[in-house]
Amino acid sequence: MNRICQLLKIKYPVIQGGMVWCSGWRLASAVSNSGGLGLIGAGSMHPGMLEEHIQRTIDATTNPFGVNVPLLYPETEKIMNIITRLGVKIVFTSAGSPKKWTRWLKDRGIVVVHVVSSAVFAEKSEAAGVDAVVAEGFEAGGHNGREETTTLALIPSVRKATSLPLIAAGGIASGSAMLAAMILGAEGVQMGTRFAVSEESSAHHYFKNLILSVGEGGTKLALKKLAPVRLIKNAFFHLVDEAEKRGAPADELIQILGKGRAKKGIFEGDLENGELEIGQVSAQINQVLPVKTIMEQLISEYNSTMTSISVDSRFSF
Amino acid sequence: MNRICQLLKIKYPVIQGGMVWCSGWRLASAVSNSGGLGLIGAGSMHPGMLEEHIQRTIDATTNPFGVNVPLLYPETEKIMNIITRLGVKIVFTSAGSPKKWTRWLKDRGIVVVHVVSSAVFAEKSEAAGVDAVVAEGFEAGGHNGREETTTLALIPSVRKATSLPLIAAGGIASGSAMLAAMILGAEGVQMGTRFAVSEESSAHHYFKNLILSVGEGGTKLALKKLAPVRLIKNAFFHLVDEAEKRGAPADELIQILGKGRAKKGIFEGDLENGELEIGQVSAQINQVLPVKTIMEQLISEYNSTMTSISVDSRFSF
Repeated sequence: MNRICQLLKIKYPVIQGGMVWCSGWRLASAVSNSGGLGLIGAGSMHPGMLEEHIQRTIDATTNPFGVNVPLLYPETEKIMNIITRLGVKIVFTSAGSPKKWTRWLKDRGIVVVHVVSSAVFAEKSEAAGVDAVVAEGFEAGGHNGREETTTLALIPSVRKATSLPLIAAGGIASGSAMLAAMILGAEGVQMGTRFAVSEESSAHHYFKNLILSVGEGGTKLALKKLAPVRLIKNAFFHLVDEAEKRGAPADELIQILGKGRAKKGIFEGDLENGELEIGQVSAQINQVLPVKTIMEQLISEYNSTMTSISVDSRFSF
Repeated sequence: MNRICQLLKIKYPVIQGGMVWCSGWRLASAVSNSGGLGLIGAGSMHPGMLEEHIQRTIDATTNPFGVNVPLLYPETEKIMNIITRLGVKIVFTSAGSPKKWTRWLKDRGIVVVHVVSSAVFAEKSEAAGVDAVVAEGFEAGGHNGREETTTLALIPSVRKATSLPLIAAGGIASGSAMLAAMILGAEGVQMGTRFAVSEESSAHHYFKNLILSVGEGGTKLALKKLAPVRLIKNAFFHLVDEAEKRGAPADELIQILGKGRAKKGIFEGDLENGELEIGQVSAQINQVLPVKTIMEQLISEYNSTMTSISVDSRFSF
């Protein structure tokens, strides 16, 4: 029995990453209804909005779902209180120390999964008492680790550092990549980019269509002096890139970034001036699909790739 | 039958990457004698030295071996003439256009493999008539692509872009990573870092020992305004990093780099002032081993990982 399926009470060990402006109740419930784990992304929601999305997810699925809470926002306490009050059973925490909320959540019977980008933080997460970790590599979209360790290098290290159930993230959008991650030691996968480009994603269709046209090298990790984030190379990115190349200090980057850039780009569809967060794997995606189809294709390719591995192709000594 | 084994006439589809100051005749012949393909790294050799290393490799193995030629050096023509005169059968070209030498080498009966970091360059390599490509991801050591595409994201893209035999490189130092790469569409692997830390590598033992202690996040891609290169974070790296953070122009970086930095670090063991090129996967390596042992462990882990994949763990719908 797969430990991730067991822990989260899901059919397939496939988690939909919590993403700003993409993952509201529609996406989360669709993923949960398709046998994976849907996550509401609290990162782009004020508490009242989150409450509404949780309520609508409860109405839309009887399957388990969770909330992803980036720990860098000031309203985290309010958010955690809403989560417990509404009876959410699973919380993914990210962008902060796992020490801060894990015990509090566990005391209230909630399964806690923490997102890390290094083996050291996986160990810290285990010490803090989390139930599982997501190890997310450099190729992932959105906010990203400072050490720039890629998924291929990261998963074996984290596997070695902890005995916790392990979910791989970053660069995974196909059944063969899912199987590759499992071979490296993961027990499940978290996918952001693939689900951002689903019909149920709340991203603007301009943004989804742009992702379909993004080719290899179309994204880059930027804003490293603030919090590194992988962006599509649009006009806003080039503004940041030019400033970074001439060594602009953090203050200036904060000014360039301004407020509400991700909303403007991802939710409102301003492809020039918006902050367009997406993973490298966007280069492999060329269709907006319903979540159900994405999940079926994923599991079917995973199964067929596994079947195609023949022990006859072992090498002799 | 594996196409890489067939093309290169080797037992295992395992290529030892051509590396500056690590891969002379001792390493190349040891890898070839162990059933893989050894490559002499011409990048750190003047023509006379290369001639000697080819001659000694011929004396040390009857198995196929090759030479890796980075196309950015002024003496490429001299090097190609030595290679053909001494009857070398396999050339890996890198760091330049595959159009320049492929036809010339093929006309002389030489197998040509080109190293790329994107699907676009894989297509160009195919058009130029190469026999196979190495697709090398962001996590690799030494010189590296500008688009920063990781091995996990790169291999499926290159697999889709070309029907050529495909060798995966970057982040691979174990049998399970090798199997993961094969599942993503590769037919062989090229490993640099693992062989740099072999007994037969000509790197200084100070450098090898330092690699054993390098942890996750211990390397970083630097000198992006010149040619990007992944380095261990030593004193020299921090000098470069400080300059880059304040936006130093290419001219200044060239001055900081100076001449002979890689030789100083890798070959002479100056761990403070040397340019120490190595891959992210160094974090997984904790022993200097003979090549024969490395190869046996690799193939044995590859086989056992393959055996452990059970079709019973397919998911049902």
